Amino acid sequence: MSRDVLLQRLGVEVPILLAPMAGAGGPELALAVARAGALPALPCAMLDAATLRRQVAEVRSDYGGPLNLNFFCHRPPPPDDAALRAWRARLAPYYRALDLDPSAQAPAAERRPFDAATCALVEELRPGVVSFHFGLPDDALLVRVRATGAVVLSSATTVAEARWLAARGVDAVIAQGLEAGGHRGSFLDDDPASQLGTFTLLPLVCDAVAVPVIAAGGITDARGIDAAFALGASAVQLGTAYLRAPQSIISSLHRAALAAADTPTQLTNLFSGRPARGLRNRLMAELGPLAQVPPFPTAGHALGPLRQAAEQQGRTDFSPLWAGQAYPLARDEDATAITRRLAAAIGQLARD
Amino acid sequence: MSRDVLLQRLGVEVPILLAPMAGAGGPELALAVARAGALPALPCAMLDAATLRRQVAEVRSDYGGPLNLNFFCHRPPPPDDAALRAWRARLAPYYRALDLDPSAQAPAAERRPFDAATCALVEELRPGVVSFHFGLPDDALLVRVRATGAVVLSSATTVAEARWLAARGVDAVIAQGLEAGGHRGSFLDDDPASQLGTFTLLPLVCDAVAVPVIAAGGITDARGIDAAFALGASAVQLGTAYLRAPQSIISSLHRAALAAADTPTQLTNLFSGRPARGLRNRLMAELGPLAQVPPFPTAGHALGPLRQAAEQQGRTDFSPLWAGQAYPLARDEDATAITRRLAAAIGQLARD
Repeated sequence: MSRDVLLQRLGVEVPILLAPMAGAGGPELALAVARAGALPALPCAMLDAATLRRQVAEVRSDYGGPLNLNFFCHRPPPPDDAALRAWRARLAPYYRALDLDPSAQAPAAERRPFDAATCALVEELRPGVVSFHFGLPDDALLVRVRATGAVVLSSATTVAEARWLAARGVDAVIAQGLEAGGHRGSFLDDDPASQLGTFTLLPLVCDAVAVPVIAAGGITDARGIDAAFALGASAVQLGTAYLRAPQSIISSLHRAALAAADTPTQLTNLFSGRPARGLRNRLMAELGPLAQVPPFPTAGHALGPLRQAAEQQGRTDFSPLWAGQAYPLARDEDATAITRRLAAAIGQLARD
Repeated sequence: MSRDVLLQRLGVEVPILLAPMAGAGGPELALAVARAGALPALPCAMLDAATLRRQVAEVRSDYGGPLNLNFFCHRPPPPDDAALRAWRARLAPYYRALDLDPSAQAPAAERRPFDAATCALVEELRPGVVSFHFGLPDDALLVRVRATGAVVLSSATTVAEARWLAARGVDAVIAQGLEAGGHRGSFLDDDPASQLGTFTLLPLVCDAVAVPVIAAGGITDARGIDAAFALGASAVQLGTAYLRAPQSIISSLHRAALAAADTPTQLTNLFSGRPARGLRNRLMAELGPLAQVPPFPTAGHALGPLRQAAEQQGRTDFSPLWAGQAYPLARDEDATAITRRLAAAIGQLARD
């Protein structure tokens, strides 16, 4: 039923979407997943135009099908120097302990909102699928995205967000349960109590909207895919399942922490200013995972030098280690093989 | 496979267990569920011996099958007068606003741990199934429970707890996901980050233990049951699904709040001293849901007079309104009809 409609619309055979994961996914992971018939994705919020063009060209060199370009729709905050100063002051003891100049700068993730220039890039690159996090862009831009023929997706973390997205004409809603790794897609409220587990969010969203629903959060193996379908999903979006694939570009420290599987995940706003799920590390343990930090996306800048210095010592004290709650189920396995294994297993468990 | 083994061991036809819910479930709800072939339960932690005997007799008057008696295994805390005084001081403004004597007492839930006297009751009543929350009783008591021929169950909120329970010989582990209403069954650690959504906890627990796993948390309709089976469960335990049944003994205020379905749930320790999930109310909003309170189960005593006075005014400001995250999916429907509807729907969705 709606599964077939969605797959036809997306132009893929396998009901699996690669989650766009900044810092983990790139052209190589996208290609590996596409090779197995699932929908590839490129996380674009941290890419400048030249890099985005180059990455799309790299995927296009070996794949002509639909590609999901993912963008952020946050409003850049007004500069808040007081918040940035307070944050630097809070981090000063760590700078001292690492013998760092408290005014040191280091490369930090720039997270750009989707704007007219980015929209022009989408018009140029015509990816086939465009997905958004943190809501949707302004109507004028959305009309231009649609005019490229792109299927439009966005994430909902509540029933209200799903309704809001459906009313604005998304082709499918990604229901992002609380178990999901990385940034929560929340955009209508920041009440932590509104955030539901996948088991609850998925049927409630399916009941609330007429468009197909894509399940995300906690789905890492064939059992999870079958469960998501039972709860009403038409497709699943997997991120954590691919984090340990050789095509994933996470650091070796991040990879080792995932493989150890001995650390719980938590939602934290320390690394960007917005809640995102990752493995608990020293900074989260010492400051508390949700603290008073500068607004998204500026909180991460002051951590750059600390992260760099600590990682050089083989430590992840200041590194975001994004991971979904189900990360212990993920394997060190080729991304094409993962996709083929999962695709072949869909619906098979019930027949055992 | 293990589903049939578990059902045979439990002595029921339908793979649904009524969750034992103090303040919501009693003989009438148990009988209604038993009538449809599912496993009935009586929450016993708040009952004295005479009441427990009477309730079991009431169930036995119309049902001869297995009955799940549920007990708590907490260690009663040493008296902490300072904590109780601090808590009363924190609540004093509410006492004043309601014109209550700050030293007023009102009936409050007594939560008793399972002890030798309770064990003797189990030996007398031979319920067929005995389940525990907050771990297991001492080995000597557990041996006596087993000697009655009872199937022994207990709840795990983490993989470590599931392993601990399996190592001590429970017949099945109840994997209680974060979505579940009422008290978390946690007993090995109180790290909030260790608490996983049902979607993640269930497959991880299934991989970790050899005994059958019963899924709990967020399962309120046929979709949830099918999903739980896909994730590896051999049976499901449902509580919130029955809260609005006419056989549920919750207050009319609690019932109305559930039906309104406009309030999120939160984990709160304000009502007992341990985290439990319920609808957010005034006390949770104003004090924060997780505050410094006297140890379980003593925190609730000081709330008794406030709760009583507020409820007389038709307000739930100080009442625990236990509910799982999926409570909007629950219906106002007879408990036998709910059970029959769900039992008939198991596995049917996949065939549509």
